[in-house]
Amino acid sequence: MAVVESAVYNLLGVFHKYSAKQGDNLKLNRAELSTLLFNELPSCYRDDAMRMLDQDGDGEVDFMEFIEFITDITTEIQNMYLHNFMKYRR
Amino acid sequence: MAVVESAVYNLLGVFHKYSAKQGDNLKLNRAELSTLLFNELPSCYRDDAMRMLDQDGDGEVDFMEFIEFITDITTEIQNMYLHNFMKYRR
Repeated sequence: MAVVESAVYNLLGVFHKYSAKQGDNLKLNRAELSTLLFNELPSCYRDDAMRMLDQDGDGEVDFMEFIEFITDITTEIQNMYLHNFMKYRR
Repeated sequence: MAVVESAVYNLLGVFHKYSAKQGDNLKLNRAELSTLLFNELPSCYRDDAMRMLDQDGDGEVDFMEFIEFITDITTEIQNMYLHNFMKYRR
């Protein structure tokens, strides 16, 4: 599968793999979120991840909140890249 | 590498692989965008992709416009999944 397509399907697949473990199959509760981050995004693992991701305050993370978090991380890495790119530009 | 981490780095890597081919290294021009979609996201290849992605109308696609497009596609697939999930829910 093409790179971007596999990235998109991997993000979808991971969300559903962990959200289906307990309770609401379409949302990540605290335990599911913690396990997902620990296993799939260790560099961003934080104890207060729920507080950071749960924008509507319902105590769980839905897909939109998850993908927004992924967008924020990707943008942060891009900005760090840009910072270095500008600094070391010949 | 963990699944989500590799998805994030793949999205970054693909953007830069194609944006660096011509002109501004940090933006996709029409040809670069077309080649990227054709190779990496064939299911979403469209001739008018530039018009769809180029939100600030500068004739190119920067990283934020690209990642917003990826978010839209991922959300669209999620919504199709939800639609079927609700329809066939036992």
